[in-house]
Amino acid sequence: MNRAEIIRAAGRFERDYGHFIRRTPLWKLPGKALGADCEEVWLKLEHLQASGSFKARGMLNRLLSHPIPSAGVIVASGGNAGIATAAAARELGVRCEVFLPTVSSAAKQARLRELGAQVVVTGAVYAEALEACLARQQESGALLTHAYDQDEVVTGAGTIGKEIEQQGGDVPDAVLVSVGGGGLIAGIATWFEDRARVVALEPELAPTLWRAREAGQPVDVAVGGIAADSLGAKRIGAIAWKVTQQWVSDARLLDDAAIREAQLLLWQQFKLAVEPAAALGIAAIRAGAFAQARRVCVILCGGNLDPATLA
Amino acid sequence: MNRAEIIRAAGRFERDYGHFIRRTPLWKLPGKALGADCEEVWLKLEHLQASGSFKARGMLNRLLSHPIPSAGVIVASGGNAGIATAAAARELGVRCEVFLPTVSSAAKQARLRELGAQVVVTGAVYAEALEACLARQQESGALLTHAYDQDEVVTGAGTIGKEIEQQGGDVPDAVLVSVGGGGLIAGIATWFEDRARVVALEPELAPTLWRAREAGQPVDVAVGGIAADSLGAKRIGAIAWKVTQQWVSDARLLDDAAIREAQLLLWQQFKLAVEPAAALGIAAIRAGAFAQARRVCVILCGGNLDPATLA
Repeated sequence: MNRAEIIRAAGRFERDYGHFIRRTPLWKLPGKALGADCEEVWLKLEHLQASGSFKARGMLNRLLSHPIPSAGVIVASGGNAGIATAAAARELGVRCEVFLPTVSSAAKQARLRELGAQVVVTGAVYAEALEACLARQQESGALLTHAYDQDEVVTGAGTIGKEIEQQGGDVPDAVLVSVGGGGLIAGIATWFEDRARVVALEPELAPTLWRAREAGQPVDVAVGGIAADSLGAKRIGAIAWKVTQQWVSDARLLDDAAIREAQLLLWQQFKLAVEPAAALGIAAIRAGAFAQARRVCVILCGGNLDPATLA
Repeated sequence: MNRAEIIRAAGRFERDYGHFIRRTPLWKLPGKALGADCEEVWLKLEHLQASGSFKARGMLNRLLSHPIPSAGVIVASGGNAGIATAAAARELGVRCEVFLPTVSSAAKQARLRELGAQVVVTGAVYAEALEACLARQQESGALLTHAYDQDEVVTGAGTIGKEIEQQGGDVPDAVLVSVGGGGLIAGIATWFEDRARVVALEPELAPTLWRAREAGQPVDVAVGGIAADSLGAKRIGAIAWKVTQQWVSDARLLDDAAIREAQLLLWQQFKLAVEPAAALGIAAIRAGAFAQARRVCVILCGGNLDPATLA
């Protein structure tokens, strides 16, 4: 897993899957437009990605990297990784089974069924759905996609970093990334290495990376709060742990009120409908962080939400 | 009103009002991604504009072009023009009074008050609100902004055409524009002249340009249907009539079911939350129009909607 692999994945997306994996817009705004002191904020509108989140990139890359058995593919996911796997499986015309915990929104479950996936709702939290999924995979032999902790999944997410650099015409000073299991930040940090300050943002109520840093190693944490539907992994992934230890020195926690305020700001002032998980970067810059930076990039990572929650 | 005026307005926006008037993204997608036969669809995400619609451009340009009396500015608007006027007035720190008909959504009325405007709700349709507004303007001497039929307002809208050409790197083959009073299409056609095929799209239930063409001159029409909140002008504007007679040969009607289907497609498949009025272009390409075109640009012109209507 390295920059060369990211370049290879991005090339394959562009060449053969341009109708599926979208080159999402990078929207440059003056910091002032967002109530931030920095010169520019670059919004990467990745919530407009196929499947409604960045995860389509990783899942398609995973499926393209392996022969797919007749049992198809299988995944356990709090929502977005499942939707992305189902969308990628449909794109390739293969079967798909999705395990997800009861905390997942009704909208996400319905979307999975629309995409032709077989849906199994089991377990109160992600880890329990994962356990059931792994048992089923042993039995069926289906190709497993993991929500965040597989090289090809992280490499797929890393293509966002490459796009940001191309579209921006340069490297931003800081890139703000929401962290659940850590697949996105691992991909972004693999791309930028030490060329940009990659910042890990987590809800106070789902602090997988934060607690791992306190403990000196990945540990299980209790997860909850407004963004648990997307960022509710119980433990930081092994890949993300390794990559962030090398490249990410800056990790921060945000409270649910600040996350919700940022989500509503994005809707009311910018007509961007994003999940709470995608609003952490805006919450961070609104809190006055990164005022010294010239160009701060925020990845809006998902938009699978019930629109009524914006009213 | 000409291309030079548009260039001048765009320059002033960029130089002095970059924190207010946004350079909205132009998103290029393969036609296939939208179920269209054309090679590329360019989505101009103008619903992300300040005030939630393209109208902020025209209103700011109008306010910048005149001395503003102590009574401030006044407008009659089905919604977006009022919100845009209020936002521009707040940006410049001047008073603002908005007249609007009872058909306007509660969300729009609330938004106006949040922007500091004094709101007067009167009349069942736009024309009645306009009449009351004009009487008040006579009395107060406030600067009137018209929702579509003023040179500076049309010039402001024309800056979108200039941006599309810059961002696209070339002129698209066709530009699909929703028409109510015609301010947007007049600006776009003034910019492109005969260099792109500018296409007028109207709801069957609000056919102001269509009926004018049948009659050989602007005439009052009955308006209703799903997009009346934004496209409910009773008669095509005099400026739009003149400009479209010169530059726009292609006008089409779309039924409400097709408009609603396109609106839901944009939300469900692309996480773009737009008003029905902004979905006409997608409805047209989904119906198989423009299959021979290489690059079709669709202007998503507004996003002031109740998000619950997307559920």
